[in-house]
Amino acid sequence: MPLDLSVPTLLLDQQKCLANIEKMIDKAHHHGLRLRPHFKTHQSLTVGRWFRERGVEQITVSSFRMADYFAQDGWQDITVAFPVNILEIDLINRLAGSIRLNLCVENPETVAFLAQELQHPVGLLIEINAGNNRSGLPLERQSVIDDILQIVQESSQLDFLGFLGHAGQSYQARGATGILESHVYSQQIMQHLREQYQNRFPELYISLGDTPTCSIAEDFSGIDEIRPGNFVYYDLMQHYIGACQLDQVAVAMACPVVAKAPERNELIIYGGGIHLSKDRVQGPDGITRFGLLADWTDQGWTPITDPDTYVKSLSQEHGVIKTSRERLAATSIGDLIPVIPVHSCMAADLMKEVVTLEGEKIAMLRYV
Amino acid sequence: MPLDLSVPTLLLDQQKCLANIEKMIDKAHHHGLRLRPHFKTHQSLTVGRWFRERGVEQITVSSFRMADYFAQDGWQDITVAFPVNILEIDLINRLAGSIRLNLCVENPETVAFLAQELQHPVGLLIEINAGNNRSGLPLERQSVIDDILQIVQESSQLDFLGFLGHAGQSYQARGATGILESHVYSQQIMQHLREQYQNRFPELYISLGDTPTCSIAEDFSGIDEIRPGNFVYYDLMQHYIGACQLDQVAVAMACPVVAKAPERNELIIYGGGIHLSKDRVQGPDGITRFGLLADWTDQGWTPITDPDTYVKSLSQEHGVIKTSRERLAATSIGDLIPVIPVHSCMAADLMKEVVTLEGEKIAMLRYV
Repeated sequence: MPLDLSVPTLLLDQQKCLANIEKMIDKAHHHGLRLRPHFKTHQSLTVGRWFRERGVEQITVSSFRMADYFAQDGWQDITVAFPVNILEIDLINRLAGSIRLNLCVENPETVAFLAQELQHPVGLLIEINAGNNRSGLPLERQSVIDDILQIVQESSQLDFLGFLGHAGQSYQARGATGILESHVYSQQIMQHLREQYQNRFPELYISLGDTPTCSIAEDFSGIDEIRPGNFVYYDLMQHYIGACQLDQVAVAMACPVVAKAPERNELIIYGGGIHLSKDRVQGPDGITRFGLLADWTDQGWTPITDPDTYVKSLSQEHGVIKTSRERLAATSIGDLIPVIPVHSCMAADLMKEVVTLEGEKIAMLRYV
Repeated sequence: MPLDLSVPTLLLDQQKCLANIEKMIDKAHHHGLRLRPHFKTHQSLTVGRWFRERGVEQITVSSFRMADYFAQDGWQDITVAFPVNILEIDLINRLAGSIRLNLCVENPETVAFLAQELQHPVGLLIEINAGNNRSGLPLERQSVIDDILQIVQESSQLDFLGFLGHAGQSYQARGATGILESHVYSQQIMQHLREQYQNRFPELYISLGDTPTCSIAEDFSGIDEIRPGNFVYYDLMQHYIGACQLDQVAVAMACPVVAKAPERNELIIYGGGIHLSKDRVQGPDGITRFGLLADWTDQGWTPITDPDTYVKSLSQEHGVIKTSRERLAATSIGDLIPVIPVHSCMAADLMKEVVTLEGEKIAMLRYV
């Protein structure tokens, strides 16, 4: 471990992160797709600039406060891929007055409110339930699309851009076949809508995206824009889904060892739910993990794939690590252990800072 | 809803919180116990002062940075109820030079390190596994206690105070019987140690505590000090455990409604894992919930106990709420819904701020 750390610290392997970014940019270019990366994972101006230096000019965020954060760093074209929270109309108007702001809607109430309250033009994407069953209109409520478009037609501030979906069901997949099934399902729904509306709106575009399908799929026909986010760091869940190799994961939490329980072959680390989040994932071996351990190398860390070593449980500050008798004996109080998080978006959000292997502290958005 | 809110906000019902504080103070007094409340739930100077105004002078925290935060507000006697992280020795020395600092240890390596590195005296508590199987020495490794005491005896900075346990297994209980079983089990372990060591250390004390047992038990024989923390706010998990009534829960997350899915009887709120945490709990009806809904009242909120209305899942910013057709129809886009968190410690830590029903913003510790 090259850095002098004393408390749980989310380390970023910048080289892996840059490789993830470049690979996705290349892939989008190869398939003729617009890459509008989701910035909710890193929530960082520094990491955002790594995208900008490589030609990315359009981004996705998940809140208006996040849009504001990036707008202040010069991002001029931002899609907020979350159903509009009408209570934030003042911030929406301020943003719409200074950048190209694209909103995501799925009900006529919100659109009518926007038509009345907006002071500047915005782009409008209608969110479709592409299989995720979270937000978004399902195809069986397609008539609502026409209700929305009716309001749009009468508004001078609303510019209909197209349809947006999130194949979040891919997070349930395990392996490429499942990911591709999610992808094809979402593709077909969006293709159906394109066929219905393209005559009336020849410029409409289809925006789809989530890290598993964008990482694995090779057929993006019918899709114009992709919005993956997690790929910038990846994590253990993405690895189990089949979206990445473990050595592509660009973050690890350095956690001090504070206790040893040889009677249970367990280590206790300072590193709990307030650092890693309570997200858990079941591996192909049926074991539920709250994180995977790694060993330090000269260049950073290398994952421990030994099935008997993993984060078994987390409380507020404690992490309990199952391990082998040998590894327990070789570990000392005060050692720092790298833990690959189950869900890097949540871990980064909790830490509010990542630190590169070179020791550079990278700040993140803070909400209060 | 009396306040003008636009984004997810953790509301604090100050009257309920004060009632929780006063009830625990009265209980400790009634049983002749020292109450050393754990401040890791609220992590707030303001809430800390509510305890101080009622005569509490000794507190528990879960990190040295948290100890430092409260020490700077005048707290002079702080126990860090977490196995000492020796990498923080500089901060430990700074704290030990200015307040009465009590450390928690369970292995001779840490104690030997402290004996060598400490520049000021500290109190030392040996942590015992009182049934929680997290940190702490199990009785079968009692010989380690003697190894530790041997080092203590030769050190001028280490003052052995007694034994500390956490009956965290009570979190698995459902109902008073289970909680009391946990309590008696922990009590017996600690009583055994007292009998072994009291002749040699007549002043030793026994510190035990967790919110379920401190809320429910009425027999504290053999215990000198209790350290509950969560009771200051309580939450849905404590209610299901049997530690509190729902109307004692003093926090609720106000979340804007952003979408409606009538085809699934679901509402989508702006309020996700970065607000409520991913902690979940199974209710007595077998349903796993990520939060419970409430209705606004003139005084605050009142929980909805209707079993078909609850938070079904959370992603980063989205919350999916299952509800009835009637409640869905009565809910509008832009409504604020109060959500009682599963785990108030985690939700408060995520939000870094609570807001009273009167609109006062109460700041919390920030780690970076």
